[in-house]
Amino acid sequence: MPVNLNPPVAAQLLPVAGVSLGIAEANIKRENRKDLLVIQLCEGARVAGVFTKNRFCAAPVIVAKEHLASGGGIRALVVNTGNANAGTGKQGLLDAQSTCAALAGLLGCRAAQILPFSTGVIMEPLPVAKIAAGLPAAVANMGEDNWLSAAEAIMTTDIVAKAISRQVVIDNVIVTITGIAKGSGMIHPNMATMLGYIATDACISQPLLQELVSTAANRSFNCITVDGDTSTNDSLMLIATAKSALPEIRETGSDAYAALLDAVSDVAIYLAQAIVRDGEGATKFITIRMEGGRDEDECKKIGYAIAHSPLVKTAFFASDPNLGRILAAIGYAGVDDLDVAALRLYLDEVLVAENGGRAASYAEEDGQRVMRQSDITIRVVLNRGGVNATLWTCDFSYDYVKINASYRS
Amino acid sequence: MPVNLNPPVAAQLLPVAGVSLGIAEANIKRENRKDLLVIQLCEGARVAGVFTKNRFCAAPVIVAKEHLASGGGIRALVVNTGNANAGTGKQGLLDAQSTCAALAGLLGCRAAQILPFSTGVIMEPLPVAKIAAGLPAAVANMGEDNWLSAAEAIMTTDIVAKAISRQVVIDNVIVTITGIAKGSGMIHPNMATMLGYIATDACISQPLLQELVSTAANRSFNCITVDGDTSTNDSLMLIATAKSALPEIRETGSDAYAALLDAVSDVAIYLAQAIVRDGEGATKFITIRMEGGRDEDECKKIGYAIAHSPLVKTAFFASDPNLGRILAAIGYAGVDDLDVAALRLYLDEVLVAENGGRAASYAEEDGQRVMRQSDITIRVVLNRGGVNATLWTCDFSYDYVKINASYRS
Repeated sequence: MPVNLNPPVAAQLLPVAGVSLGIAEANIKRENRKDLLVIQLCEGARVAGVFTKNRFCAAPVIVAKEHLASGGGIRALVVNTGNANAGTGKQGLLDAQSTCAALAGLLGCRAAQILPFSTGVIMEPLPVAKIAAGLPAAVANMGEDNWLSAAEAIMTTDIVAKAISRQVVIDNVIVTITGIAKGSGMIHPNMATMLGYIATDACISQPLLQELVSTAANRSFNCITVDGDTSTNDSLMLIATAKSALPEIRETGSDAYAALLDAVSDVAIYLAQAIVRDGEGATKFITIRMEGGRDEDECKKIGYAIAHSPLVKTAFFASDPNLGRILAAIGYAGVDDLDVAALRLYLDEVLVAENGGRAASYAEEDGQRVMRQSDITIRVVLNRGGVNATLWTCDFSYDYVKINASYRS
Repeated sequence: MPVNLNPPVAAQLLPVAGVSLGIAEANIKRENRKDLLVIQLCEGARVAGVFTKNRFCAAPVIVAKEHLASGGGIRALVVNTGNANAGTGKQGLLDAQSTCAALAGLLGCRAAQILPFSTGVIMEPLPVAKIAAGLPAAVANMGEDNWLSAAEAIMTTDIVAKAISRQVVIDNVIVTITGIAKGSGMIHPNMATMLGYIATDACISQPLLQELVSTAANRSFNCITVDGDTSTNDSLMLIATAKSALPEIRETGSDAYAALLDAVSDVAIYLAQAIVRDGEGATKFITIRMEGGRDEDECKKIGYAIAHSPLVKTAFFASDPNLGRILAAIGYAGVDDLDVAALRLYLDEVLVAENGGRAASYAEEDGQRVMRQSDITIRVVLNRGGVNATLWTCDFSYDYVKINASYRS
């Protein structure tokens, strides 16, 4: 079950002026299941995004990048679950284009004004006919209040839908931000089997919108891992509809940019953490806080070595303070000149290790007490410099194996 | 259960002249269990080795390296299970030294002529008194025929003991090689929670012995992974007693060197594969064969991305030909200019993917048939160059989680 993650409540999800959402059951992989989402945008809305760095990136990722780059004004996003349209070669590209064309026909725009997204099983042909047949129903039930249904429609192995809204006052104008995301396995930075859609009614120039989504992703989705697998389909899209009264944000140095960045980052961090809390089989939410590193690279190297270690993750699952496994992971992280005698390891506030070994003050029952919690912070103080970094991950349980050994069957 | 791995038979393990082995039950972690091994060497025997690259390397690793470097003629090795003496700071170094001193007293040599090794739980103090109390019994039952008992004495979570002998005729002289190893979790190149001891009665110069063990390790133990965790204690030692009639090998270009290298590599590969076959929770033995890479680095990068992917490993556990997961792993391996449309993926002889997607000839039942086997080869033909590389790994099952969530309790 998800770790300290409540399902979103429809009443708490705020519409974003200029964004309508329509959902359908297109029977893509299973029947009687929401599996198709259309997000329609008002004229003048801007979209920017970040995408997976996987070389086997999915066909819709390639097409979405092309359509974004063509600069023709994006009018809709279309998302299907049940099939990733990845590892599908040239036919996959044609299928993604067909999906865009079908929706463009219904909305009266060009196919290049549609961004396609897919998530689900890899290396199987996209059932384009089913998607095309489902699109009219999605368009027919379009509405500004459909954010919860939209969050549910993009779920795959997720147990809980992920959605949140924030409002922030910038220059006396209320700005609204609402975001949804999906993902729970194949989760790794750059990015995750992760789809995320965040919309705001602020107005912001296209280059700044791109910079904002990249920065927000680095603070959030690029700081999480469940299993170290980088997906073929990861995409985070940021939509700015310009429907609020706030004047266009044009400078990164402006207070308005900083305020919007913080608010969007808050939404992105909530969604990223929600993905970890709903990590496949997760029973513990683990914050890994690195302090006193020379640079961000070494902080993240060590943090991810801890976060990816199956031995560390299974010890957390067992609530077993077998904390030497954390030291071993720090040691093999690849920081060649690391002085292990100089660092300190804490579990929440409990000092576990210093001077290259167990701290004299450490008592097993203190470690045991923290390990039994569902939210735990591992803190590594490197004493090498002034840089800090934080990552989030989860433990590794029987259910991770169960979920992933039976995903298709 | 181990995958196609038979327990060694005592009668098939050949003594190596100049090497005696003594075993004791020292109650280090549990009672009534062989947990202490002494390997005594004849005067003039040479020893070389390779060690973990973990920055948190264990105290015995530091001490063994020092003693090897001191060049005083190694007379014995002492190995305990039940405690790794790692993450134990300065006291750990003192404890490893005390162990050497205790054995040196019994054997009438200097402490610097003893190499200490430990394996087991990390970050707990080594029970030196128990080890010292157990040493006389180990010395008392010393014998040349104790290789099987020795292999059993160094097991921790291993299910099956790992030992093998080979004989090879070099320049009309029969040369004998016998090796033992332990390890099944925290297994990763450079190296594994892996202890390996290989002895030969050949005579070889000290620099060549070092080169030979490094080369043999790169062909064997540095090509395996179970869970990606690099241990604090990994050590592979190669002993040459010079008791055979073969003249000293002094040139890497000689036929004798090549023959000995091949024979030692055979033993090392058998032991390395045995560790994977006995990998924690393993139900499948997977050979990952990379062909047509530009260099070994990119071959291994891609191979390890596949080998470490929990999604790939759980699919193999389920015998589910969800082979898109292999494509995804290839795609995120970090080879930035990889042309995914140029590569071909095979499962044994079955062509699975080409041209960036599923092969037209691929039928699910063919993939399913191969996935049901216990020994499977994943072959990736990169079509980028002339370099090949082979790795070995295992699948990821409920039992991996079970073993590692209950190791200490």
